[in-house]
Amino acid sequence: MTASLARRESSPVSLPQPYLLFLGDVTEAGFAKTAFGLKDWAADLCVGELACSSDAVTTGLTRMTPKKAYVRGARAMVIGVANPGGVIKPSWMPSLLDALEAGLDLIAGMHARLEDAPELKAAAERYGRKLIDVRRPPAGIPIATGRKRTGKRLLTVGTDCAIGKKYTALALAAAFKARGVGADFRASGQTGIMIAGGGVPMDAVVSDFEAGAAEILSPDAAPDHWDVIEGQGSLSHPAYAAVSLGLLHGSQPDVVVLCHEPGRERLLGFPEFRTPSLIDAIAVNLQMGALTNPNIRCGGVSFNTSALTQQEAEVLMAVASTALSLPVADPLRGGPAFERLVDNCLAP
Amino acid sequence: MTASLARRESSPVSLPQPYLLFLGDVTEAGFAKTAFGLKDWAADLCVGELACSSDAVTTGLTRMTPKKAYVRGARAMVIGVANPGGVIKPSWMPSLLDALEAGLDLIAGMHARLEDAPELKAAAERYGRKLIDVRRPPAGIPIATGRKRTGKRLLTVGTDCAIGKKYTALALAAAFKARGVGADFRASGQTGIMIAGGGVPMDAVVSDFEAGAAEILSPDAAPDHWDVIEGQGSLSHPAYAAVSLGLLHGSQPDVVVLCHEPGRERLLGFPEFRTPSLIDAIAVNLQMGALTNPNIRCGGVSFNTSALTQQEAEVLMAVASTALSLPVADPLRGGPAFERLVDNCLAP
Repeated sequence: MTASLARRESSPVSLPQPYLLFLGDVTEAGFAKTAFGLKDWAADLCVGELACSSDAVTTGLTRMTPKKAYVRGARAMVIGVANPGGVIKPSWMPSLLDALEAGLDLIAGMHARLEDAPELKAAAERYGRKLIDVRRPPAGIPIATGRKRTGKRLLTVGTDCAIGKKYTALALAAAFKARGVGADFRASGQTGIMIAGGGVPMDAVVSDFEAGAAEILSPDAAPDHWDVIEGQGSLSHPAYAAVSLGLLHGSQPDVVVLCHEPGRERLLGFPEFRTPSLIDAIAVNLQMGALTNPNIRCGGVSFNTSALTQQEAEVLMAVASTALSLPVADPLRGGPAFERLVDNCLAP
Repeated sequence: MTASLARRESSPVSLPQPYLLFLGDVTEAGFAKTAFGLKDWAADLCVGELACSSDAVTTGLTRMTPKKAYVRGARAMVIGVANPGGVIKPSWMPSLLDALEAGLDLIAGMHARLEDAPELKAAAERYGRKLIDVRRPPAGIPIATGRKRTGKRLLTVGTDCAIGKKYTALALAAAFKARGVGADFRASGQTGIMIAGGGVPMDAVVSDFEAGAAEILSPDAAPDHWDVIEGQGSLSHPAYAAVSLGLLHGSQPDVVVLCHEPGRERLLGFPEFRTPSLIDAIAVNLQMGALTNPNIRCGGVSFNTSALTQQEAEVLMAVASTALSLPVADPLRGGPAFERLVDNCLAP
């Protein structure tokens, strides 16, 4: 039953491709997770990028108008940025209308719905275009049962939002497969769903059903199969911990991998809140996760070292690994450290 | 700003009264929280009860048909029961249709909406009656900020669902007022909202906004004013912990009071899960709550001893109080133990 529900959820996702990535006027990379995620993990689906401010972040793709993107094959523009509250900023509107006029559908994963903006709705109707919302959760999500499911599960957890939980899950799922282990990446957020073509937008689910949504996200599987589940938020986040706890309880992970960005001492956008220590973040996830899986353990730590040199990154990872007695690796750098992390996650 | 939002939420609640309480075919009192809550805390609003099965629980009110209830003054029938998933059972339908035909509006607080049932919608239109859903959360709930608000806050937390969190909050708010302390009961669930005439149905809020909803539920107040907030679920519940954690973080309580039913060794409806020990439940609430209020403390424990004699209850409460070095009381029994609990909650 849960398996068939999970299948039904995934099926509605069928997006027009390839994409033009819209960056708005966002100047902080942490708020452009969707654009960077698509560029890094589905580069063949991205023909270029568009911003509405010259100092906006860049994915490194060619900047182009919607018209040019259409000529180069794009069939949809993805709103690749987010802001607290997930609203459509008025300053974005001219670019969004341009895209519709140029023949591109709009794809978004924000809380605010595209079709709730009358200007967009009217323009989409005028030009015969679609407004697609990947954050609308499936209907009929059940209350969690707490029943232990078959198969193995890994959940990425974090010291903060926008810290590498999706990247880590994608890299681990790919590494598991490369070793011949049956594995599926399970997407819990808009970008992941755009990359994977399915999943459940966990932060858009009504709270009472949060753990239940996580249960249908990773249904019963073969005993040696791994679901590698994209984490959300952080148990130590003043706004989003509810999402994290429901996902943790419903995922019943055998293994958690903690994601962290060295040097991030304050929560992104919440400067009054300190990032928790790694050992505390691991402990609270194991403590709370033990409710639905008493055998939960930490497979290691994933560092986002994109702001560091290779040498700096290696030194930091080695020190942290010694401190915690756990593998510490940056999945995007790979190498022996990452292989040790994979080994430890898969260790019987 | 938050204060004005909170006011806007409360304003839509304006219910036709008095009530006929509908018990369906529920045989376990734990699933009839709404009916019992209304009978105990708003007895003057309840003219009688109706069940559709002879072995259903009873609130002790006179059983009567909707027609008779109307003659006795009732203007709405409240669906006073819940089941896992919050659905409208087909076996309830004849009674609901009877009520509409008799001239009663229907009030419900389940996940399933009354107006989504075509039979009910058609009947309501035919008879000119209203279908009122107190679980629809207000629009425009913001993301939590984590900003510390003025005033004092108490949150009731629990070892399980349906264990006395609403009763305890109502009793404490009444006791605070009786001592001349400015206090408001803040309702977070359907029954509480029906009693209080306002509040936020926390379990129906989208997860990303859960802590934000708790923030607007108890806005800035005078420094010596107490908001006494009705808790939801339990951090140790496999289905509902997300609701509990968002409410805890957003409430920023200065004081938590743990609610428990002695003898309940398994979670209601989740027999594979043990009820946590009192000391563990207190510890995890203080640990997680410290994120948004580092000064959080436990004011004491509230026992639901409705299944025990006065003597049994007194012995149990005294032993638990000695074990935990905290006041332990049953608010419905009152007495010196309850006064000690109130003292300790208000202690500077």
